Amino acid sequence: MSNTFRFDLISTDPTGARRGTIHTAHGRIETPCFMPVGTLANVKTQTWDDVRSVGASIVLANTYHLYLRPGHELVRELGGLHRFSGWSGPILTDSGGFQVHSLAHNRRIEEDGVRFRSHLDGSEHLFTPELVMRIQADLGVDIPMAFDECCPYPSAREYAARSMERTHAWARRCIDAWPGEGGGVLYGICQGAFEPDLRTESAQTVSSLPFAGIAIGGLAVGEPKEEFERMLEIVAPHLPEHRPRYLMGVGYPEDLIDAVGRGIDQFDCVLPTRNARKAMLFTSRGPLIAKAARYARDPDPPDPNCRCRVCNTTSRAYLRHLFKSREYLAQHLATYHNLYFYLDLMRRAREAIETGAYAEFSRRFLADYDPAAR
Amino acid sequence: MSNTFRFDLISTDPTGARRGTIHTAHGRIETPCFMPVGTLANVKTQTWDDVRSVGASIVLANTYHLYLRPGHELVRELGGLHRFSGWSGPILTDSGGFQVHSLAHNRRIEEDGVRFRSHLDGSEHLFTPELVMRIQADLGVDIPMAFDECCPYPSAREYAARSMERTHAWARRCIDAWPGEGGGVLYGICQGAFEPDLRTESAQTVSSLPFAGIAIGGLAVGEPKEEFERMLEIVAPHLPEHRPRYLMGVGYPEDLIDAVGRGIDQFDCVLPTRNARKAMLFTSRGPLIAKAARYARDPDPPDPNCRCRVCNTTSRAYLRHLFKSREYLAQHLATYHNLYFYLDLMRRAREAIETGAYAEFSRRFLADYDPAAR
Repeated sequence: MSNTFRFDLISTDPTGARRGTIHTAHGRIETPCFMPVGTLANVKTQTWDDVRSVGASIVLANTYHLYLRPGHELVRELGGLHRFSGWSGPILTDSGGFQVHSLAHNRRIEEDGVRFRSHLDGSEHLFTPELVMRIQADLGVDIPMAFDECCPYPSAREYAARSMERTHAWARRCIDAWPGEGGGVLYGICQGAFEPDLRTESAQTVSSLPFAGIAIGGLAVGEPKEEFERMLEIVAPHLPEHRPRYLMGVGYPEDLIDAVGRGIDQFDCVLPTRNARKAMLFTSRGPLIAKAARYARDPDPPDPNCRCRVCNTTSRAYLRHLFKSREYLAQHLATYHNLYFYLDLMRRAREAIETGAYAEFSRRFLADYDPAAR
Repeated sequence: MSNTFRFDLISTDPTGARRGTIHTAHGRIETPCFMPVGTLANVKTQTWDDVRSVGASIVLANTYHLYLRPGHELVRELGGLHRFSGWSGPILTDSGGFQVHSLAHNRRIEEDGVRFRSHLDGSEHLFTPELVMRIQADLGVDIPMAFDECCPYPSAREYAARSMERTHAWARRCIDAWPGEGGGVLYGICQGAFEPDLRTESAQTVSSLPFAGIAIGGLAVGEPKEEFERMLEIVAPHLPEHRPRYLMGVGYPEDLIDAVGRGIDQFDCVLPTRNARKAMLFTSRGPLIAKAARYARDPDPPDPNCRCRVCNTTSRAYLRHLFKSREYLAQHLATYHNLYFYLDLMRRAREAIETGAYAEFSRRFLADYDPAAR
């Protein structure tokens, strides 16, 4: 583990929600935190000034995508991902385990790694734990992730068990292979599909390894909400107290509220950005479909309770007009608002945890928030 | 003419280039000026903060587009285009004369107006001078344009003459119909196709009418550059000294440099915004094709001589990566830079005129600037 990286647990709320600070070579991250997804070295439709301005301190990029385009060697040659992209804050990279599962073609899992064809041009590639570590080292990120296998939902128990063992073997190979360049520290990913005993075993095994943080992978893969909650409930208590806990790919605002209460520190999800591009805005009352005819003459901002610069300057009528006219600006404005909403939710959660009032905060939020879009 | 609107001619350079100030109900415009095109009540990919930040003081919107979507009555109901869009500076609207010519289907020109079908849904509409004045009054703009007929290039002389007469008759009907609401003042448009005597006649006739400013229409419609320059040379001397002169739909940086030297005060053009979206960036050395393979590993900014925030933070390699990956952010960054380039060009032209050094300024600009894209 690098000297630069440190996780300070500041306080724990009666619910189990945790308030902490992650120190990295590129700056501090106050937790619980939401990490905007910047797949291809940019958060879609947003400048880095925008990303800073919504309150993000760390962004996520994707090993799989950047390996295919523009290539890790090009990024290394240009000084690493920070210098290449112009984002000066901390960067975490997903290892590609999920993307080879969800995006790549002709995926063939072998003990050595995963053979796949690029979704861009069909070219064949082999991701091994060692290559994935090399890519992330070339990118020069602050938090690289171990290479894991993400099981589909549902999976047969025998497959899930074999897959988990493979993920554990790969986790050890990642630790051995990680060159530790540039102060980057490795997080492990626990799996176990939807088998309670495997989930427990994986959480314990991965936590026993010298990872700087522990992520929960393999959830939010299309399972029913109850399954998701049940697994989270099983796994969370097995995660070590003094390392950051990261729930990958989650989720809706109500999911974040729930998971923060179970002691999760880090989140990433494409929902605020992807749904914004499809005209869905998250608001304090619930999701709003900005294209809906009912907003054609509505002079109110998307969320009257929001203080972001979009809600300060933009009416629902104007936003609807931009979406109906297919203007890119609509996607930019909606994305900005949604990111602000997610980051502000985390900011308010942190405040509530600091005063031991997280249960009350979460009750109030959920009382106002109707998950049904309108 | 409203009391609010005023054009102060501050100084005239030996070349004929003019330095002026236009006062409107929504603020001042220093001339010569470039007006970013905001067809559908937004400058594509840019927030109003961006538009302000590149140095724009006035934007152009389109009567034709806003009439079709979201509709002038909706905009009026929501308080006019300024309030609806959130842009608080001056707005000029093109009258739709050019758009019914270039975009609409089944166009039928009658003495009363133009019958056409919407390019969006095929619905039939009739634009008369009176309706076009009503639409622009409902939009509440600062500078509405008279409704004119834009001749295609080439046009038969007889057609061009009849069309010019129609434009003059419509100009008088526009003056009669303009309700003068909200301090908006009407500009006339002279036509005459590519017939020198018609161009002269039209410039004189339109200038004899009580328009607050005079525009040159019907150029930049696909004619050879020499034809364009010849017509501009013929028309410019006939335009009145104490009213703003607006060259519609022009053009490339070198065209603006030329036209400013002929005493033009206002410009609008889709080139900086539209070409940006196609990865062409205007630079002090000439246009740059941001997707070109030669920039894949180029750490330089798009224009090392530019002080815009994109050139301050973005390498050609990163911009190329974004364009190749089809990320919207590429279009945003390129558009921001191009608008800054155009607005900065006008700012520097104004400075040169103030010191009587426009000839030297324009010579230097053209010496560095190679119009061939690379």
